[in-house]
Amino acid sequence: MAVYTKVSAEEIDRFLTRFDVGTLVSAKGIAEGVENSNYLIETTQDRFILTLYEKRVDPGDLPFFIAMLDHLAEKNCPVPPMIADRDGTKIQQLCGRYACLIKFLPGISVSLPTAAQAEATGQALGQMHDALKDFPGDRPNSMNHDTWRKLAIDCGPDGLDAIAPGLHDLVDAELDYLDEHWPEDLPRSVIHADLFPDNVLMLDDQVTGLIDFYFSCTDIRAYDVAITHAAWCFSEDGAEFHADISDALLRGYQSAFNLNPDAHAALPVLARGAALRFLLTRAYDWINTPADALVTRKDPVAFLNRLHFYQVNPDIFAI
Amino acid sequence: MAVYTKVSAEEIDRFLTRFDVGTLVSAKGIAEGVENSNYLIETTQDRFILTLYEKRVDPGDLPFFIAMLDHLAEKNCPVPPMIADRDGTKIQQLCGRYACLIKFLPGISVSLPTAAQAEATGQALGQMHDALKDFPGDRPNSMNHDTWRKLAIDCGPDGLDAIAPGLHDLVDAELDYLDEHWPEDLPRSVIHADLFPDNVLMLDDQVTGLIDFYFSCTDIRAYDVAITHAAWCFSEDGAEFHADISDALLRGYQSAFNLNPDAHAALPVLARGAALRFLLTRAYDWINTPADALVTRKDPVAFLNRLHFYQVNPDIFAI
Repeated sequence: MAVYTKVSAEEIDRFLTRFDVGTLVSAKGIAEGVENSNYLIETTQDRFILTLYEKRVDPGDLPFFIAMLDHLAEKNCPVPPMIADRDGTKIQQLCGRYACLIKFLPGISVSLPTAAQAEATGQALGQMHDALKDFPGDRPNSMNHDTWRKLAIDCGPDGLDAIAPGLHDLVDAELDYLDEHWPEDLPRSVIHADLFPDNVLMLDDQVTGLIDFYFSCTDIRAYDVAITHAAWCFSEDGAEFHADISDALLRGYQSAFNLNPDAHAALPVLARGAALRFLLTRAYDWINTPADALVTRKDPVAFLNRLHFYQVNPDIFAI
Repeated sequence: MAVYTKVSAEEIDRFLTRFDVGTLVSAKGIAEGVENSNYLIETTQDRFILTLYEKRVDPGDLPFFIAMLDHLAEKNCPVPPMIADRDGTKIQQLCGRYACLIKFLPGISVSLPTAAQAEATGQALGQMHDALKDFPGDRPNSMNHDTWRKLAIDCGPDGLDAIAPGLHDLVDAELDYLDEHWPEDLPRSVIHADLFPDNVLMLDDQVTGLIDFYFSCTDIRAYDVAITHAAWCFSEDGAEFHADISDALLRGYQSAFNLNPDAHAALPVLARGAALRFLLTRAYDWINTPADALVTRKDPVAFLNRLHFYQVNPDIFAI
């Protein structure tokens, strides 16, 4: 959430000469997204996001992301495609980083979604899944179910228990439960895998943009619904479940995509997995980020609370 | 250069209802300016900067800044005035901070100015000084000449010598020189006091905005010329003096404002003072900021190099 690579206005102006997009009028470094550097750019013709990829995005994955966004844009999903230069190239280099010029989308990210906004988001997720059915790309999920036990071990028992007393044992038992119950033969496809409210742009109750596809990967399709559910249907600290948001999100999704009965039946387990995945990655970052760092540490307990809720409320996914 | 206070889109949307500016379409936290939180905001009507004032700006100074910007805008200087709400109020509160909604100005900040850009900036500075001649506001310069010795003492001899061997003695001797030669009876007015290229917006060779007035204060007017000279006429590391930029900046200034002969004659001393002021504040921040902090520490040596140059080249200000 900062600008890691400083690019001068002159460098941006020169960069833009590769494209047919007019000349630079304004450039502001923006604090947004995963650990990339982003500039909101205005030219004499239009507005764009200029992204420079820092260490967390593997440049080898960029062709996958570009193909996915192009595929979604062709099917009228509201995603921000990368702009090609005059030679048709989308992956550029700038200041020693891989970089892309990306279409700017209007819209704001809501913090406290209404039911209507959750329904529109569920529908947009379903439309995205429908559009991705015939997308041939493939990218392993580097944070899939198989990786969670190692992540827990890397956190260490003391590290986990410092976050919440007894957390190590709880995680251990949950890992056992998920190993036993994780559904291995559900329909898989490319999924967003990180559709938090931050990554949805809205105007009133309309979705104007789905953004930040840098965790997109191949995994169980219904797991994407579970992640989105965990991301949208609770207060930020996870202490309160919002039943109306949950119902609206699932209703919106079902209006656009039909999960098969097995996938639907697995949602309670998948939601426990989603809660554990974010609990563990947040715990790892919490343990390995100094408390006084300018990078905001996200509280793992917010997803421990969600996990507790999902453990005792499997019925919320019943139709 | 980060967003310190996170404001949700809903809060910004609600905030905007105090004004006649339309409804929110986009809001991006931007990494800009002194230590405030800034959002670039688009509404259905226009674009704005929303600034939340963090610890480095004293809220008691906001009326001064507002009066100064209004005065300059009335006289057609390209400054971004604060927007009044329906009740005529400009100083707002938001998320526990004082906040202002500010007109967005197009333009980019150059890193390697051309002579034409330096001339336009000198002219804009002269026009600003002319416009401020009858501005009645007054704000003490918290970093004026009288404060520099204390700042050097606070850095400590070891701290200064760790930055450059012998720096403590050099600073001490320069403080003595400036105490002896600092001109006390030159014309004073409100000045910008921080007109680095970062704080000038340009389109091609035109100045479209003078921004970031949060160091503005009452001091020797020609000292503002000296600060701007130190900020614009060297390579970033201070190792190279750019005579063409210097000539252009001074020519532009003189086309818009006539310094009296005493003020002009004092420029070599004032420039040494400007170099020492930024050397000392950067040294203080350098000593007191951990090397691994995300806040970028600015190298004090860049202004030590400028000081060396001004010490031996007083003739560059001769007409």
